[in-house]
Amino acid sequence: MARSANQVLALTLRKLARSENSDGIRRIILKSHPADLAHVMRSLTATQQVRVFREIRPLKKAAEVLMEMEPALSERIIEKINDDLLAMLIVQMAPEEVASVLRTIDAPRRELLLSDLSFEEASEAEALAVYDPKSAGGLMSPNYFVVDAKTTASEAIQKLHRNDYDIIFYLYVINDHGHLVGVVSLRDLVRSPANTEVKEIMYDEVVRVDVSADREDVASLVARYNLLALPVTEGGNQLIGVVTVDDIIDVIRLEATEDIMHAAGAGVEASPNESFLTSIRSRTPWIAPTFFAGLAGMALLSYYQKQLVEVVPLLVLIPMIMGIARHVGAQSSTIVTRWLATGRLEFATIRRVVLREIFIGAIIGFVFGTVITLLITLFFQELVFENSMLVFAIGVGLSSIASTSLAAALGAAAPPIFERSGIDPAIAAGPLVTTTIDVLALWVYLLCASLFL
Amino acid sequence: MARSANQVLALTLRKLARSENSDGIRRIILKSHPADLAHVMRSLTATQQVRVFREIRPLKKAAEVLMEMEPALSERIIEKINDDLLAMLIVQMAPEEVASVLRTIDAPRRELLLSDLSFEEASEAEALAVYDPKSAGGLMSPNYFVVDAKTTASEAIQKLHRNDYDIIFYLYVINDHGHLVGVVSLRDLVRSPANTEVKEIMYDEVVRVDVSADREDVASLVARYNLLALPVTEGGNQLIGVVTVDDIIDVIRLEATEDIMHAAGAGVEASPNESFLTSIRSRTPWIAPTFFAGLAGMALLSYYQKQLVEVVPLLVLIPMIMGIARHVGAQSSTIVTRWLATGRLEFATIRRVVLREIFIGAIIGFVFGTVITLLITLFFQELVFENSMLVFAIGVGLSSIASTSLAAALGAAAPPIFERSGIDPAIAAGPLVTTTIDVLALWVYLLCASLFL
Repeated sequence: MARSANQVLALTLRKLARSENSDGIRRIILKSHPADLAHVMRSLTATQQVRVFREIRPLKKAAEVLMEMEPALSERIIEKINDDLLAMLIVQMAPEEVASVLRTIDAPRRELLLSDLSFEEASEAEALAVYDPKSAGGLMSPNYFVVDAKTTASEAIQKLHRNDYDIIFYLYVINDHGHLVGVVSLRDLVRSPANTEVKEIMYDEVVRVDVSADREDVASLVARYNLLALPVTEGGNQLIGVVTVDDIIDVIRLEATEDIMHAAGAGVEASPNESFLTSIRSRTPWIAPTFFAGLAGMALLSYYQKQLVEVVPLLVLIPMIMGIARHVGAQSSTIVTRWLATGRLEFATIRRVVLREIFIGAIIGFVFGTVITLLITLFFQELVFENSMLVFAIGVGLSSIASTSLAAALGAAAPPIFERSGIDPAIAAGPLVTTTIDVLALWVYLLCASLFL
Repeated sequence: MARSANQVLALTLRKLARSENSDGIRRIILKSHPADLAHVMRSLTATQQVRVFREIRPLKKAAEVLMEMEPALSERIIEKINDDLLAMLIVQMAPEEVASVLRTIDAPRRELLLSDLSFEEASEAEALAVYDPKSAGGLMSPNYFVVDAKTTASEAIQKLHRNDYDIIFYLYVINDHGHLVGVVSLRDLVRSPANTEVKEIMYDEVVRVDVSADREDVASLVARYNLLALPVTEGGNQLIGVVTVDDIIDVIRLEATEDIMHAAGAGVEASPNESFLTSIRSRTPWIAPTFFAGLAGMALLSYYQKQLVEVVPLLVLIPMIMGIARHVGAQSSTIVTRWLATGRLEFATIRRVVLREIFIGAIIGFVFGTVITLLITLFFQELVFENSMLVFAIGVGLSSIASTSLAAALGAAAPPIFERSGIDPAIAAGPLVTTTIDVLALWVYLLCASLFL
């Protein structure tokens, strides 16, 4: 339903933008949700995007659309619109949103823009812009609701009436040093008698996250404890910001996309509307591991060519043995990577998991090795020189077991090793490891074969 | 930080469970968050899990732990504990939680359990249990907060004080027929003058979802519109439930895991603690496409063996050509699948996207085809019969372009075709398509090669 409605919206906007019908564009904008506008922007050409964006009124709505767009698109719009419009837009934004704009523009333009904000707002946004956008600091809002432990429920509610923040889920209780000592849910507050002090209804074991924490860990905490907001601290308990659940949803989707793209060796960013050149430039380097694995494969096959040419079934089995080993390795690396990403695997148990995967790989290799051996016995009887038939069949079966066990071991061990070295383990589920497995499987196969012949 | 704290918790619980120290277990349970208990349960043996679970008090906490555990684990616990305990637990649960328990047990046990609930509670839970757990109906809570359009802000707040629901984000406004006509945020309600009627502060274009909608579409709506809760309707506007953001976070993580597992051809469910037999049984069938592709590869190589044996460089290039084509195909299928899953691709533009991918595939094929041709010219000079060197090099280059274009076309076209046929397109990013690409790439390569020789 939402999809087809958006298709109509996209078609209409495209038509109106082509005929430069500003009145029509404005009428459509007025009726549309900012999230939908941000969404359909993607089906417009670059020129149309800027033309439509310039018509969005009120400016509050334009700022919302800008923040809802995918980063590549909003950066392009920010680049294309003039300083005056951008300055009017950032006045409408929350400090963390201003910070995200500041991260994408150069120093001279920054200064120009910030001059339109109050000194306080400008320095708040600049301070936030320093944090890595992939950390808790890069996600947090500096606007949160604090009270001290002796505030009563009715005082807190009155203070709540006066405040101007977008979404409030919890009241954070701080002491005289600004240290986080408790949290009260809005629900408990509203239901308590008017003169209850917040310290009576607060939880004092507050789940919190350090400002430098990776956004993936922030997401894990929010998901595990079913939180609506997570306080961000510096030095353990100095409250400096809050990350809310709506941002976490975006993080979880972005991280999942990143993991999936890594696993296919397809780079990180991709948009259906990026130019051919961008697509080709960003995808080609990811194929490099496959290319070098191919080179190594060429070298191996050249080295063993004599055996291959003499015993044709050896040659004919190559795609089968490599394919199954690669698949078993991909299973292990993908499963272990996902367990790490979702916190289902502790470092303490990794050795056990790797051994477990080797065993599983060996069993799967045994199953398929047996089937392959039977197939050879059935179909290639005449091709194999009668005498060493049995030896050859056993050799193929063993090489299948060896290559799949090796593949499983490498697949299972790579993600934790990557994580420990500070590299995203999702890359381990990708071509870097799969192609290494390819080459090793080929090598083990050829080695086993040459030993048995 | 959270990780290492959980490791200590897991170690302590393991030790206490081994020594059957019930007092110790109960002390640890008292101090631990239900989400952490659910988490560390995974590092215990099956017997320890049940032993620790039985000690959890109050029963409200035990019910929470049960609901926070991963489905495979909670099902096992439900199976192992006796009817009395389970009956006491479901009394503590929300109706949608009871429904999720009912889905996992057989009819006689159901009846026994439901007899402990009031008639109303039992029939509510039974009605919910009917919905597919992967649909909006399977996620929704039947407890939501409704008012009519003429209720004043102060009346609504009073009603709020008396209600007993877990989390309330919005007030839904319904008319006399139970039709959803508006929504008011808790924030707007609290800030409005006491005698404001809700119809003055309500939004009347309420984003809603049909009860039969797939949970992935529910998640997309919540993510796009930054919602905290999404009303579920039947027949367009009859309000029957609400899905909240905390459940959506779990859905997004589960769906991402499912997509990633599909892409590696590793099945859907996997847990670091499942038995070897379970792992092997669930993973082996997923390797079937790779096996059959291997068979097809064997057939192709047997058919072309004469050419291969005569011109060894042909043979030696096989892993390279197949590897690059497979990788390009995997890039296309993964990218298109993810665009579909995150709603970045409309069906109307699919033809353009497929053509785009073919073009990108051809260019990448051309880049690597050129490199490969140069490599052959450098390293295999003596091996190729001098005269047809040029023809052979061109043949390899062309076959590289042909196989990567074909791979990209198949990779890009498969996900939308799967989606239209009602199959999860994530499967298209998996081995079914990659192995088809493998075989086709090999065939195109051998065909091109035999044409040029």
